[in-house]
Amino acid sequence: MFDILHRVGIKASIGEVYNALATPKGIARWWTEETTGDNRAGGMIKFRFSDNGRELGVFDMKILELHTDTRVVWEVIRGPAEWVGTKIRFDLRREGEFTIVLFKHEGWKEPVEFMYHCSTKWAIFLMSLKALGETGKGQPSPHDVRIGDWH
Amino acid sequence: MFDILHRVGIKASIGEVYNALATPKGIARWWTEETTGDNRAGGMIKFRFSDNGRELGVFDMKILELHTDTRVVWEVIRGPAEWVGTKIRFDLRREGEFTIVLFKHEGWKEPVEFMYHCSTKWAIFLMSLKALGETGKGQPSPHDVRIGDWH
Repeated sequence: MFDILHRVGIKASIGEVYNALATPKGIARWWTEETTGDNRAGGMIKFRFSDNGRELGVFDMKILELHTDTRVVWEVIRGPAEWVGTKIRFDLRREGEFTIVLFKHEGWKEPVEFMYHCSTKWAIFLMSLKALGETGKGQPSPHDVRIGDWH
Repeated sequence: MFDILHRVGIKASIGEVYNALATPKGIARWWTEETTGDNRAGGMIKFRFSDNGRELGVFDMKILELHTDTRVVWEVIRGPAEWVGTKIRFDLRREGEFTIVLFKHEGWKEPVEFMYHCSTKWAIFLMSLKALGETGKGQPSPHDVRIGDWH
């Protein structure tokens, strides 16, 4: 199994960062505006990505863990074949004036080229989460920073 | 062993991207301004990172492979303990109007927290390489985008 790892430090309270990860409304402000669903462990969240009306991606995730101000874990139920069954994990802690986010997208079966792309794109979205915490404004899809021909 | 993977697409010729990876002068325009050394396989390149005069990082790398417009591979000879012995690989190809860069920092012994940080930071620097190719101006250290308390 192969994992995507990232770490960012955000000058915002741990509660603000947690809320941006634990609720569909929060996630919609940094990952994709088209986020709907539950905010309780065991519930589902639906994520859609589009570009000028063209659908780019559809992801349904199960919320496996929600530990206030500490951890959020999702499992991918529906999405690109390479994503199904993988888990996405956010671990939070304070370090000085920063809330540290350790991110792990774990359980890729093979390090396919799409995994290379998703790794870079996750970094972009975590920088969007950082911007949301520090300036009040993220860059969720469809306003996300483009990294190449695969968006 | 654990690897950091990234993929970006750059609207620039493959020759321009290759030159930005294959020569100290090119690397100085997107990774760190303090880059000196050789531009031949078997040679060495020295990278320094600093912040207001404070030294943040020192890396000496051996150039293992230089294949024009195709591939660049370095081996870390001196640097943080977790980096020594790892390899950094850039594979290039054309895809439509883009030069695709597949990046791999391979051979980490353990997925330590520093690896999480370096993964995100490599994405930032590859976006700097992309900006260099597309606008003529990258954001090499010390002008690089900060991602948290570890810079």
